[in-house]
Amino acid sequence: MPTAAIVIIGDEILSGKFVEENAAFLIGELRALGVDLKRITVIPDDRDDIAATVREQAAKFDHVFTSGGVGPTHDDVTMEAIALAFGTTVIREPVLEQRVRAYWGDRLAEPNLRLADVPAGAELVYGKDQVWPVVAYRNVYILPGVPTLFRRKFVDIRDRFRTETVTIARVYIDADEGQIAKDLDNVVAAHPSVKIGSYPRFAEKDFRVLVTLEGRDTAEVAAAFALLVERAGTKVVRSEAPASVGQ
Amino acid sequence: MPTAAIVIIGDEILSGKFVEENAAFLIGELRALGVDLKRITVIPDDRDDIAATVREQAAKFDHVFTSGGVGPTHDDVTMEAIALAFGTTVIREPVLEQRVRAYWGDRLAEPNLRLADVPAGAELVYGKDQVWPVVAYRNVYILPGVPTLFRRKFVDIRDRFRTETVTIARVYIDADEGQIAKDLDNVVAAHPSVKIGSYPRFAEKDFRVLVTLEGRDTAEVAAAFALLVERAGTKVVRSEAPASVGQ
Repeated sequence: MPTAAIVIIGDEILSGKFVEENAAFLIGELRALGVDLKRITVIPDDRDDIAATVREQAAKFDHVFTSGGVGPTHDDVTMEAIALAFGTTVIREPVLEQRVRAYWGDRLAEPNLRLADVPAGAELVYGKDQVWPVVAYRNVYILPGVPTLFRRKFVDIRDRFRTETVTIARVYIDADEGQIAKDLDNVVAAHPSVKIGSYPRFAEKDFRVLVTLEGRDTAEVAAAFALLVERAGTKVVRSEAPASVGQ
Repeated sequence: MPTAAIVIIGDEILSGKFVEENAAFLIGELRALGVDLKRITVIPDDRDDIAATVREQAAKFDHVFTSGGVGPTHDDVTMEAIALAFGTTVIREPVLEQRVRAYWGDRLAEPNLRLADVPAGAELVYGKDQVWPVVAYRNVYILPGVPTLFRRKFVDIRDRFRTETVTIARVYIDADEGQIAKDLDNVVAAHPSVKIGSYPRFAEKDFRVLVTLEGRDTAEVAAAFALLVERAGTKVVRSEAPASVGQ
């Protein structure tokens, strides 16, 4: 299963001016595509911090998605930072420059041309939208921070990340988490390929712990689910049988 | 201004089973307290990853807040990971053990006692709640992932992080971001202590860019605000004059 990391570049998120929307959106997309999201990092609009973070994540994971810091103003330093991360420089990309000039026409202000600046060696990734590509450098996809644009651009190229489906089951248990810890240990030991999560809830009426079972091997998830339901016995309030997520 | 980082430990967030609530809550709290949040990281329930991440953040920032991985089940590895991060071991803390035994009484299951396990040398931080302290190791505050508990425990001890207020102003501009980039550059150059953010919006009726101006020095923020309003002229749709945030 390919892995991914999200890097959110945004003083405006860290200072609470805007609620984070892009990672929240991408979490669901990546899950549906069968990509294993391993890390989300929210960092300031700081060139060196962006460079260090992107370099580290690009080396560890298959895909990296950045959000923000792409635009015509002083705080838009992502392109420069990613160039720095990979030891290259920023160039004005001719195809993009043409698009920018065509789009703004007479209304073009010089800073708009910064939208055509990319790290030298970047790839222009086209999806269904043949006009505005996504800029990628190696395994780093550089997306804008404005949520409507972020979504549109990711959806446009998402098919290239699609892999396989995962199977998930849920068991709702009316017991203290400590009372089922041993049962969970047994299920974990018997089915190591199944990822088991245990989540205590205090505001629910009829259950106190939600247990999730998740994996790529449907038969294994089903066996783990059956074992847990058997062991937890009457403490099980209800359950959702193994079902595929993704498409 | 003291700095902070948030480390969210949670497979359940990365896989989209639950929406992240704790960082979202803490962003607003830290801002109101006058603490400069520099980084949010969401990572899996993995001992080595938690240890490496916490060690790195604790060295860089004044305060680190962790969320999750604290409880009686197999996936609760935060205490062990933080002990590992600082080269110590996990011990059963006598005061906490007494609390756990008193709370559960006859219903105590052995795994519940794991709630009394902390890194050796940890501090028990008491707020108004004299029964359940927050466990801290050096500058790392170890909070539970369940949102109701996370909030309650942070609110209980938040006064120890309170510092000063910041001043913020906002200018709503009806122009393309490229058209005001030069004006912003001028304001940035004239008032380097003021943090200026420029945020294009496409779904608003009457403006296209929101500019925020923020700093600790109220007079500087006011001067930067006045300069921007003057330079942007008739492009300014409305504005919010400098006002204090925090208490």
